[in-house]
Amino acid sequence: MVNVGLRLFGDAVRSQGVGVVDVDWRIPAGGDPALVAALTTTYGTHSARIEEANAEVCRRLDSAAPVLSGLATARDVVPGMGDRTLLHPGPPLAWEDVCDPLRRSAHAAVMAEGWADTPEAAEALIASGDVDLQPANEHATVGPMATVLGPSAPVFVVENPQSGARAFAGINQGPGAAPWFGVETPEAVARLVLLREAVRPVLEPALGATIESGGPIDIFSVAAQGLQMGDDAHMRTQASTNLLIRALLPGLVAADGDRGVKVARFLATNHLLFLNVVMAAAKTTSDWASAVPGSSIVTGMARNGTTFGIKVAGLDRWFTAPAPDVGQALFHPGYGPADAAPDIGDSAVLETLGLGGAAAAASPAVATFLGGKMAGAVAATRAMESICAGRSTRFRIPYLDFSGSPIGIDLRRVVTLEVTPRITTGILDAAGGRGQVGAGVATAPLAAFQAALLGVVESPEA
Amino acid sequence: MVNVGLRLFGDAVRSQGVGVVDVDWRIPAGGDPALVAALTTTYGTHSARIEEANAEVCRRLDSAAPVLSGLATARDVVPGMGDRTLLHPGPPLAWEDVCDPLRRSAHAAVMAEGWADTPEAAEALIASGDVDLQPANEHATVGPMATVLGPSAPVFVVENPQSGARAFAGINQGPGAAPWFGVETPEAVARLVLLREAVRPVLEPALGATIESGGPIDIFSVAAQGLQMGDDAHMRTQASTNLLIRALLPGLVAADGDRGVKVARFLATNHLLFLNVVMAAAKTTSDWASAVPGSSIVTGMARNGTTFGIKVAGLDRWFTAPAPDVGQALFHPGYGPADAAPDIGDSAVLETLGLGGAAAAASPAVATFLGGKMAGAVAATRAMESICAGRSTRFRIPYLDFSGSPIGIDLRRVVTLEVTPRITTGILDAAGGRGQVGAGVATAPLAAFQAALLGVVESPEA
Repeated sequence: MVNVGLRLFGDAVRSQGVGVVDVDWRIPAGGDPALVAALTTTYGTHSARIEEANAEVCRRLDSAAPVLSGLATARDVVPGMGDRTLLHPGPPLAWEDVCDPLRRSAHAAVMAEGWADTPEAAEALIASGDVDLQPANEHATVGPMATVLGPSAPVFVVENPQSGARAFAGINQGPGAAPWFGVETPEAVARLVLLREAVRPVLEPALGATIESGGPIDIFSVAAQGLQMGDDAHMRTQASTNLLIRALLPGLVAADGDRGVKVARFLATNHLLFLNVVMAAAKTTSDWASAVPGSSIVTGMARNGTTFGIKVAGLDRWFTAPAPDVGQALFHPGYGPADAAPDIGDSAVLETLGLGGAAAAASPAVATFLGGKMAGAVAATRAMESICAGRSTRFRIPYLDFSGSPIGIDLRRVVTLEVTPRITTGILDAAGGRGQVGAGVATAPLAAFQAALLGVVESPEA
Repeated sequence: MVNVGLRLFGDAVRSQGVGVVDVDWRIPAGGDPALVAALTTTYGTHSARIEEANAEVCRRLDSAAPVLSGLATARDVVPGMGDRTLLHPGPPLAWEDVCDPLRRSAHAAVMAEGWADTPEAAEALIASGDVDLQPANEHATVGPMATVLGPSAPVFVVENPQSGARAFAGINQGPGAAPWFGVETPEAVARLVLLREAVRPVLEPALGATIESGGPIDIFSVAAQGLQMGDDAHMRTQASTNLLIRALLPGLVAADGDRGVKVARFLATNHLLFLNVVMAAAKTTSDWASAVPGSSIVTGMARNGTTFGIKVAGLDRWFTAPAPDVGQALFHPGYGPADAAPDIGDSAVLETLGLGGAAAAASPAVATFLGGKMAGAVAATRAMESICAGRSTRFRIPYLDFSGSPIGIDLRRVVTLEVTPRITTGILDAAGGRGQVGAGVATAPLAAFQAALLGVVESPEA
């Protein structure tokens, strides 16, 4: 006998001595009529053209080879960046809805721009409407955690040769008292000034020298090497950062004495330098994939600390749900779940193309946050596999016999299985402005994916 | 029925319908009477005191924490280094028995010292007996592959706080045309001059600055991190080298312009910088463990390209066998087994304390040489486990659920099982002086271990 669904029925027959094979089956999408109808359409009558679109989305996610081409000032290169623009992570939101760490980071950015001298003055200025608060994603830019970028901020310039488009990300702000962790102290403001007035002048010629001698840096090639060296390229970018720094070494050594040493000290303690670079590469890749119409593949995920939003290829809109807590977490000594702000940052774009949670099984460091054995990290990668349409041909996981990490999150699978992406991430202090309090793995909220599937069905393309 | 030994007998009974459990058992040591007697003694009447000694040897191999404390000129620090001394890897040997790559490396060292101007003149000088050719191991020094050190060579100084002793290793000579790969061209000689006259003057103050700000560098701590990042810390030291370079970054950036940039270019292309450092750490650790009398644990392994030698704790002598070929190998394009020199270098000391072949399962890069799947690398680690008495508490293998790598190669197990250490290594051109032609995994020759076990039994301690 084959028993489909509840094991209970199989047990009843089994108790009578009959051989039974149980098939794990549940009503898809929890039986919600609208969702079941959407699945019926997208897996049924529209299936062939969706599969075709999805294949093209996956091809783009897998084959894009963006390069790091330089550093510039945000106002000079970021499209639509005005003299009073501040870019924030995640979907758009009103200032009154901004969470505490992102609010503090915005204050710090205002002070670093010289628009105000104190957090209070910065708060008043933004609340007055005199600052143009914009989602970075709408300006070809991404920022991890609570990163806020003003017009004077230095940004990495990443080019996508296939699409001809560019994407941008600030220089990673480093550990400790830094605005991207929701800190607004004078020390944190000074970090932004350091990036602009010391790190950028040293890093830009170093990068230039490296590119001149070796050509533009293929960012995903560095990430792929990182995965062979224990990075997931999201929570952990230690190996890829070090590869990048070693490549930059001749140019860094050429920097002039005192300033060079100051920057070297900053770089020597910042193992997330590569994070912002690979995020910008993922952003321009997902933007390219987003241009394919009629697909059910997720090409953007971002959080502002208040809402979690996703974008779907072909649909230029956000589908949002409240930002989740980071469920599987380890906290710094003295902190716990009560101190944790909800999941925040644009970094989840990495999970759309095989990095972060999708590559958890490549990273012993990520495993530390998932029970301390590799099995926990493998489970995160397997969860991503169950909802993905393809596999990366370049991001290989040694622990899984070098199989490619899963790419192309398919809304239909997410809604059917009620399994959502796993995102490796840091955790910020919810209200005290004390910075990072832990790290862990967040589970994306199902509601955003359900809304997106309905959006796909309702779109003119469908 | 329980069938011990040949499966044939079990099969005979099994054919009659009787349940059989086969136990894989073979005559130990191939039935050699002297070896069986030695095993009988060492596993029998002398077992208790050998186990006690072995436990202390393993404790030392596992707990030593040597630090990198600086750079110096060989003649100033290496014990017994005279004005005409050349240090070579492996057990002692006569000049007429020196293999081609080591011979060329010695020529290059003679030329770098200014004792001769051509390889021919260097050859004549050494053959005349006017150069004191000494095994580096007998002078607290180690060198990878065909490294030869003259008195003017810069050496890393490694201190063992537990024993109060020091060990030394030259600066890794880097890729391409370099003497440690058996190249004697003017370019190779220039590499030795570069190390002495540019790399050392830049690296020494950089190391000093790093130590001043962060304390002496705990070498095995860096190696342990490397294992979490895909190093086996022998064939592959990419991650640990990069960690070291990032730690040195502020000091390197402080170096003066042109020379600093030249050195940075060298460091940026040398992913084996850490190899020599961790070898010196292993050397001072194994020297400390060697002071324990009455043990059956191997505390030294080294090859000169002609013979493969091992040392046993408590016995101050070499047990040798002909150097093996590197059995499991990948060759550079255009080269093959016919071009391969036998296994060479002092680096096999790493395999005595949980690194290299013992840690193969930590390294996707090593797996490339063992069939391309992690299973091949795991098999190498498992082979080492089968002949080791303990496990490292600090060198953890993520792929094996963070279990400690095997340490303490026990002669008794090697001789009983006829399984010998697996050593990850490079391969040199046998006769053409063209440098490295491949890399792979060598299997140590059983005869050296058999001779050593007899030596243990015959020693006054036994």
